[in-house]
Amino acid sequence: MSLRFKNAKRIEGLDSNIWIEFTKLAADPSVVNLGQGLPDISPPVYVKEELSKIAAIDNLNQYTRGFGHPSLVKALSCLYEKFYHNKINPNEEILVTVGAYGSLFNAIQGLIDEGDEVIVIVPFFDCYESMVRMAGATPVFVPLRCKPVDGKKCSSSDWTLDPQELASKFNSKTKAIILNTPHNPLGKVYTKEELQVIADLCIKYDTLCISDEVYEWLVYTGNKHFKIATFPGMWERTITIGSAGKTFSVTGWKLGWSIGPKHLIKHLQTVQQNTVYTCATPLQEALAQAFWIDIKRMDDPECYFNSLPKELEVKRDRMVHLLESVGLKSIVPDGGYFIIADVSMLDVDLLDMKDSNEPYDYKFVKWMIKNKKLSAIPVSAFCNAETKSQFEKFVRFCFIKKDSTLDAAEEIIKAWSRQNS
Amino acid sequence: MSLRFKNAKRIEGLDSNIWIEFTKLAADPSVVNLGQGLPDISPPVYVKEELSKIAAIDNLNQYTRGFGHPSLVKALSCLYEKFYHNKINPNEEILVTVGAYGSLFNAIQGLIDEGDEVIVIVPFFDCYESMVRMAGATPVFVPLRCKPVDGKKCSSSDWTLDPQELASKFNSKTKAIILNTPHNPLGKVYTKEELQVIADLCIKYDTLCISDEVYEWLVYTGNKHFKIATFPGMWERTITIGSAGKTFSVTGWKLGWSIGPKHLIKHLQTVQQNTVYTCATPLQEALAQAFWIDIKRMDDPECYFNSLPKELEVKRDRMVHLLESVGLKSIVPDGGYFIIADVSMLDVDLLDMKDSNEPYDYKFVKWMIKNKKLSAIPVSAFCNAETKSQFEKFVRFCFIKKDSTLDAAEEIIKAWSRQNS
Ligand SMILES: Cc1ncc(COP(=O)(O)O)c(C=O)c1O
Ligand SMILES: Cc1ncc(COP(=O)(O)O)c(C=O)c1O
Repeated sequence: MSLRFKNAKRIEGLDSNIWIEFTKLAADPSVVNLGQGLPDISPPVYVKEELSKIAAIDNLNQYTRGFGHPSLVKALSCLYEKFYHNKINPNEEILVTVGAYGSLFNAIQGLIDEGDEVIVIVPFFDCYESMVRMAGATPVFVPLRCKPVDGKKCSSSDWTLDPQELASKFNSKTKAIILNTPHNPLGKVYTKEELQVIADLCIKYDTLCISDEVYEWLVYTGNKHFKIATFPGMWERTITIGSAGKTFSVTGWKLGWSIGPKHLIKHLQTVQQNTVYTCATPLQEALAQAFWIDIKRMDDPECYFNSLPKELEVKRDRMVHLLESVGLKSIVPDGGYFIIADVSMLDVDLLDMKDSNEPYDYKFVKWMIKNKKLSAIPVSAFCNAETKSQFEKFVRFCFIKKDSTLDAAEEIIKAWSRQNS
Repeated sequence: MSLRFKNAKRIEGLDSNIWIEFTKLAADPSVVNLGQGLPDISPPVYVKEELSKIAAIDNLNQYTRGFGHPSLVKALSCLYEKFYHNKINPNEEILVTVGAYGSLFNAIQGLIDEGDEVIVIVPFFDCYESMVRMAGATPVFVPLRCKPVDGKKCSSSDWTLDPQELASKFNSKTKAIILNTPHNPLGKVYTKEELQVIADLCIKYDTLCISDEVYEWLVYTGNKHFKIATFPGMWERTITIGSAGKTFSVTGWKLGWSIGPKHLIKHLQTVQQNTVYTCATPLQEALAQAFWIDIKRMDDPECYFNSLPKELEVKRDRMVHLLESVGLKSIVPDGGYFIIADVSMLDVDLLDMKDSNEPYDYKFVKWMIKNKKLSAIPVSAFCNAETKSQFEKFVRFCFIKKDSTLDAAEEIIKAWSRQNS
């Protein structure tokens, strides 16, 4: 084969991917899959019905506006104006993308240059690092650290940034920081005070903020989601990213959006028009219709933005108790639909696992899939090479699952625990 | 506004876009839109019905395999094996993307490095140039030239590459050539002999070929579509690109695919997993089902791959006669759904058009939209800066339109002609 047919340099070393690897392992239908963030609960009936109806309409199967289907950007502006202090121009301050993933890509390719530095908080949704590298920029990592907690349960809010350490990462080369709240995988919901520290640094160093808020509605009792874009001086430097997949439990629709000032969004638009040009019309129209249904009943407990977190909080509590009952320490998430457990105390004998230079959690999850028919995601997948060892005792379980799936997981975990005792 | 908030260098100068500009102009519903390649005929009923049914199935609204939904890559491999001399591995030799557009982007980002040269044949689908530039590479242009035709009608096959001129563009820096057959905007269907010239050069210079074949089924009587990937020595160096939007007249679905050897496709996959990760599941499943219906009846005139070109050939002939009847010279397309007309003989007085440094065809189309309520696309939009002047007497009309739309266009054109005579 010709030597000239190798990859372009920009993607050198970016070919491995945690989702592809672990989705393949969990594909066996006898495995109870609490791995990938893939709801197996039913999406709202009206969401599916809208798509069914719209599929029959000829012109909604054809190209629409490249930067976002008109009815969708209108719905988004109407929804988000409720949370921002400013009006949002649907055509200039919103861009509809192929999932939140597409928004992250557009933002990074549109705004980050080769040689720039981008601050990434560890652990992080895995594509942040590779997208920054694909842009030729350098990710600068800063970890969330766990405050010592004695006695009481450990919660995601015990994981915080050290303000001094964070400040030390900013310099004149820092182009952006990528924030994720509610956080995947920890479930941390950043407080107003924590966000203010980040905002102050962004302003001081004249830095962009890419704020990934795909789990914005999924916040549990006692917590509140804040948008850093609404902090003084932040709108003009922030891209806020959302996801239809996470908002309406239809991850397969792959629609997302970026919201921000025109002077930033226009560069994301330029990337879009040179990568995919436009997103799927029928899905965009169905999403717009779904939004209108819920926008009209935002104070109603039936509104999906309110009902889904209520439903998930029960599942979260169930997972916490389940893990506790078998003696596993978990980090109780304040938001999102993942829970992290410390599996080091299980003391599983992994000697027979090959690839022994993999982090412990990779080996553990592979072992668990094979021997226990239960899948999860190793948390060190959300870390850069240097910090993997800090997180390799943790695995992430996804709990946006119907009761029968959680029942099956419970059975596996309890049988395992009986075996061990 | 902070100076640091400007675009990344890679997208410098890539912000203008012909579709966005002219789609906006043609948005007025009183304008008869023969501009953008947007079918207003109904897509096949079964295609829409499949989507309606699938929308109701919970797990088909969730994430699927990132490189292509299993049932879709299987259908694609089964279909295309009929045209290639080899088996096609659905998982390693096919990648499903966000439209053919996404395939072009993945191929260029995955395989083309900064400093490489990429041969682009003029006129070209406009994103080829900007995508090559976004990869930091240099597009090297070579024009299709019209052989003198005396008397008889001018056809797209009169437009050819000069083999010497083409050869002169290849050198050791040439990484790839982008081919488009059937061709947008000319409607040219490359002959076997023409493709052999290109193949020989690719092999001689060890060059990749990115073959955009989105109009592969839309070939008119007397012509045949050939796949350059099936030429000896070409499979290993060719990415062949198709589009659901063009195949089933559902441009709004934005699904496409790349087919090629594993050693190339894997790099496109790496780009995909760092840009969008995966494509919409319900659309992929519906597309797979639609393919199965037509794969089973490929020799049947009812098969959409056979019936659509028949339907379009009538529309093409109608457009040829219409343009002829008002004295406009057209280039009769052998494939695709566009027809080009020479509007220079109309001698329209464009003095009142501002932006007078625009090419003639831009001004002409704007004038026509405003004064005649008929839209088209200026052909110089498909040219690099240096060749615009060679093509500015042409405009492109799209004819995948229902009869009532073509009636309305006919009425406008005939009234205009009466006015002039
Ligand atoms: C934090 C975070 N951001 C972005 C995404 C991608 O979302 P989408 O499917 O809308 O592209 C995910 C998906 O899991 C996520 O967890
Ligand atoms: C030659 C050519 N290639 C690619 C495309 C893009 O196709 P898709 O809509 O599948 O991205 C088009 C659309 O007009 C085209 O004409």
